[in-house]
Amino acid sequence: MSQSDAGFIAALDEAKKGYDEGGVPIGACLVAADGKILGRGHNLRIQKGSATLHAEMSALENAGRLPASAYEGATMYTTLSPCDMCTGACILYKVKRVILGENTTFLGGEEHLQRKGIEVVNVKSAECEALMAKFIKERPGDWNEDIGEQ
Amino acid sequence: MSQSDAGFIAALDEAKKGYDEGGVPIGACLVAADGKILGRGHNLRIQKGSATLHAEMSALENAGRLPASAYEGATMYTTLSPCDMCTGACILYKVKRVILGENTTFLGGEEHLQRKGIEVVNVKSAECEALMAKFIKERPGDWNEDIGEQ
Repeated sequence: MSQSDAGFIAALDEAKKGYDEGGVPIGACLVAADGKILGRGHNLRIQKGSATLHAEMSALENAGRLPASAYEGATMYTTLSPCDMCTGACILYKVKRVILGENTTFLGGEEHLQRKGIEVVNVKSAECEALMAKFIKERPGDWNEDIGEQ
Repeated sequence: MSQSDAGFIAALDEAKKGYDEGGVPIGACLVAADGKILGRGHNLRIQKGSATLHAEMSALENAGRLPASAYEGATMYTTLSPCDMCTGACILYKVKRVILGENTTFLGGEEHLQRKGIEVVNVKSAECEALMAKFIKERPGDWNEDIGEQ
């Protein structure tokens, strides 16, 4: 599990796309047990006025309607520690592990994931952290709204 | 808090709409502290091939992008005990309470909601339960897929 995983690279690429679109720069990528990318996406709160399309939700949504077996052994890569909603979505679909870019900017439901038997790995990506720091400095209100704080 | 609340009636109405569309018959309605309906919706897994649009998520999505203050004192009405994803969404936006139709068909994240300080009320609606029983009897596979079990 490292920053060189294809899933992590895709998630970071999604986060950068989000930033370029003027959105909250968080990306995610859902990878099946066999390594196939099932879905990838980024936070669309600003772009679509969406209250639910956080990065992990976009990745799940883009993966489409799948049977439970598709998520068996799957990994959710995300550039930031998942919020309570995205944590719950990972629990609902019983992904095997969540690999996150960093949790310095925001610490989400990692404890709850672990309580539910989902492995959590923090790859401590300086690039993910720097991208969030840049965004939050530029648009603190948009960030606080995204995490339900403002 | 009862089955005669406007929010509960709207949620049940959404559940029936979902059934009529051939979908999973679960509805929800988000009501602000002042009684105004912010958003309502129903499960769209089958209709839209969506992995994320459960009833509560649809209600939140239809309410649109709102500041945290809009959710202060808000109530999420839902015809069925919320799954882990919808539970997490209610926690993210810090709704004050969740009023659910029943939890006999499915018991979701009620304990987690309470742990996070959200009031949970079960109105024990025979109508909600009967609607789910009818759907599950007709389409057991679709139901199990919706809760990540098949």
